[in-house]
Amino acid sequence: MSKIKRKIQIQCPMPKLDFEVITLGHGSGGQLTNRLLESGVFDLLKNDFLDERHDGSILELSGKTAFTTDSFVISPIFFPGGDIGELAINGTINDLAMCGAIPKYLSLSFILEEGLTMQEFWQVLCSIKAAAEAAGVLIVTGDTKVVDRGKGDKIFINTTGIGSVHPKANISAKRIQTGDKIMVSGEIAAHGIAIMSVREGLEFETTIESDTAPLHRIVAGLLDAFGNQIHLLRDATRGGIATVLAEIAQQTGLGIDLQQTQIPVDEQVYSACEILGLDPLYVANEGKFVAFAAAEIAEEVLHHLKTAGHSPNAAIIGEVVKTHPRQVVMTSGIGGRRVVNMLPGEQLPRIC
Amino acid sequence: MSKIKRKIQIQCPMPKLDFEVITLGHGSGGQLTNRLLESGVFDLLKNDFLDERHDGSILELSGKTAFTTDSFVISPIFFPGGDIGELAINGTINDLAMCGAIPKYLSLSFILEEGLTMQEFWQVLCSIKAAAEAAGVLIVTGDTKVVDRGKGDKIFINTTGIGSVHPKANISAKRIQTGDKIMVSGEIAAHGIAIMSVREGLEFETTIESDTAPLHRIVAGLLDAFGNQIHLLRDATRGGIATVLAEIAQQTGLGIDLQQTQIPVDEQVYSACEILGLDPLYVANEGKFVAFAAAEIAEEVLHHLKTAGHSPNAAIIGEVVKTHPRQVVMTSGIGGRRVVNMLPGEQLPRIC
Repeated sequence: MSKIKRKIQIQCPMPKLDFEVITLGHGSGGQLTNRLLESGVFDLLKNDFLDERHDGSILELSGKTAFTTDSFVISPIFFPGGDIGELAINGTINDLAMCGAIPKYLSLSFILEEGLTMQEFWQVLCSIKAAAEAAGVLIVTGDTKVVDRGKGDKIFINTTGIGSVHPKANISAKRIQTGDKIMVSGEIAAHGIAIMSVREGLEFETTIESDTAPLHRIVAGLLDAFGNQIHLLRDATRGGIATVLAEIAQQTGLGIDLQQTQIPVDEQVYSACEILGLDPLYVANEGKFVAFAAAEIAEEVLHHLKTAGHSPNAAIIGEVVKTHPRQVVMTSGIGGRRVVNMLPGEQLPRIC
Repeated sequence: MSKIKRKIQIQCPMPKLDFEVITLGHGSGGQLTNRLLESGVFDLLKNDFLDERHDGSILELSGKTAFTTDSFVISPIFFPGGDIGELAINGTINDLAMCGAIPKYLSLSFILEEGLTMQEFWQVLCSIKAAAEAAGVLIVTGDTKVVDRGKGDKIFINTTGIGSVHPKANISAKRIQTGDKIMVSGEIAAHGIAIMSVREGLEFETTIESDTAPLHRIVAGLLDAFGNQIHLLRDATRGGIATVLAEIAQQTGLGIDLQQTQIPVDEQVYSACEILGLDPLYVANEGKFVAFAAAEIAEEVLHHLKTAGHSPNAAIIGEVVKTHPRQVVMTSGIGGRRVVNMLPGEQLPRIC
C-alpha cells in the first residue's frame, strides 16, 4: 500500500487501540461501536455537527439544493492513485458538481466486513478526511455497520451529498440543442485501466494512476464564466463516455456525432486498453466530465477549461445533430463511421 | 415470504423481464443497468425528480434542515412484520423525526449481490414504494451497485434523508436537565425478537412481528403540542433502550434512574427474551423512541402519546438525576438496583 502514490497529503497516525481487526461487535451499536468511533474516528473527522452525536445533523440551507447519493464497492480498495475513501468523497462531490452545485455537506456510511484490519480502515478514514478537506466539504453525519466474514468485501462506503446550486446554473438534458458542442475535460480511461492493471498484475513503464479528483471547482469556474450557456454536465464514470453519451442521445431523442481523433487518451492508457482488449470510450473515469455548451461559446469554454480549469487536454469531441436521432455515431481517423452503443453487459465490474 | 403479515398494503405486479436474477452486468452502468432501471424501477418509484434521470436531484429547501444516513444490512431480508425495504425507509424517516424534522426527501442506494432473484428485489422495491408513500416522502435520487456472489448478502440498502426541522423543535442532548422525565413510546424489543425468532426457527402462539413503523407523525404531534419542552428524542434501535440511555448519560454527564416495572414489554416478547436469554432492554426496536421532557409536562406528554399518538402502551419509565452521574441505574420490582451499562459486544448481529 505504501507504494501507492497519492495526490492528496495524508498524515494521520493511528491511535493506540486494544483491537486490531473489525468484529461484528463494532456494528452492534453498543460499547464496541462506541469505542471504535470515540477512539479516533470522531476526532479525525471532528466538526461541530459530529460533536452533537445525534442521529442526524441540522443544517441551515436555502434555495436550490442538489442532493445525490453513491455507494462505492470498488475492488481492490487501495489502487494506484487513490483508494475507496478518496473515491467515495470525490465521486459524490462530482455528482453534485454535475448538477451545477457547490458541494457543502456529506453523509458517510460504512458497511465493514468482519476481519477488516483496523489499519486498513484507518487508512481509508484518513484518506476520507484528506479528500474532504481538500474539497472543502464537511462530513456531518454517518453510520457504521458490520457484516459477517464472507458477506461483504472489506469495506463498502455510501456517501450522500448536499450542495448549493450555482446561481447561474441551469443544467438539464432538456436544455441540449442541435448544434451544441460536446467537450471532455481531459484524457479519458485512466481510472478503469489503473484498476484493471492492479487486478491483472500488469506492469507498464510508469504506473497508470486513477484520475480520481474533485471537479467542483472547475465546474464553478465554468458556471461563473458561462452560466446557463452550459447546458449539461455529466461525469463519465461507470461505462465511460460512450455510455454517458448514448444515454443522453436516448434521453433527448437527438443524435450525437463524435470525432474519434479528437478524444484525448494518454498514450500509455491507450496501449493498456489494447493489451486488455478494452475500448477506452467505455472505460470508467473518476475525474473527467463531458459538457454540452452552445456552439457559439464552445471555443471559449475550451480555452477556459485548458487555462483556468487546468485541464490542458480538454477537447471538443463532437456535436449534437438532427440526423440519426437517439444514436451516437463516431467518425474514425480514416473516415469510417460506427454507432456507439451502450455496452450490453459488464466490462469492468466493481470499478467504483 | 407470502406468509409474512404486512402493515402496509403492497400491490405491484412485477413487469415482464427477460432476466430472473441480478448479474454483475446490472451494476455496470451500461445497457443492463439501464434495462433494470427502465424496465420497472423508475416507473414504480416515479416522480418528477427521478424523471430528470440526472446524477442528482435539485430540491428547493429553506431554513433548518435535518440530514441523516443509515445503511441496512439486516438478515434475513424478509421477516415477520416487514422487510429490509420497509425498514430502510422507516429507519431513516425515524432518524429525521428524532431530529425534530418532517421527512421530505430520501436517497436510495442499493448494493445487490449477484444472484439475487429479481422477484426478491422487486418485492423489496414494492415495499420501499409502499413505505415511502405511507410516510409521505419522495425518493428523489438513487444508485445501484452489484457485487460478486459471496461478496455481499442479497441486498444492502442505504437511505439518506432530508427533512425540515419543525419550527417549534429544539432537540439536543444539551437541553436535558435534572428532573426531566423519560418516556418510551410503546412496548419494546419486538423487532429484535422477531428477527431472532426467524433465525432460531422459534415458534410462539402468535408470530412476533417487527415493530417497524414511521414515527414522524407522532413526533410532529408532540412538537405541535409541546414544542421546546421536548428536550431530546432518540429511537431505540441497535442496542435497545439500554444503549441509548447509557449513551445519553455519558454524553450529558447526568444520571438516569429507571423503573423496571414501568418499562412496557409485550408478554410474549418477554417470554421469548427469556427463552433466548436476552434482556429486552438491549433488544432493538424499529418503531419506538424515548423522549426526555420537562417534568411539569410529563403527564400531559404521556396522555398525548397514548391518545393522539395512538401509543396506548407509552409510559414514563424514569427520570434524570444528579446522583450517580454518567450512569443509568435501574430499580427492579422488588427494589433491587443495578447499573445498566452498554453491552460490551454483540447481542444480535445484523438486526437492521
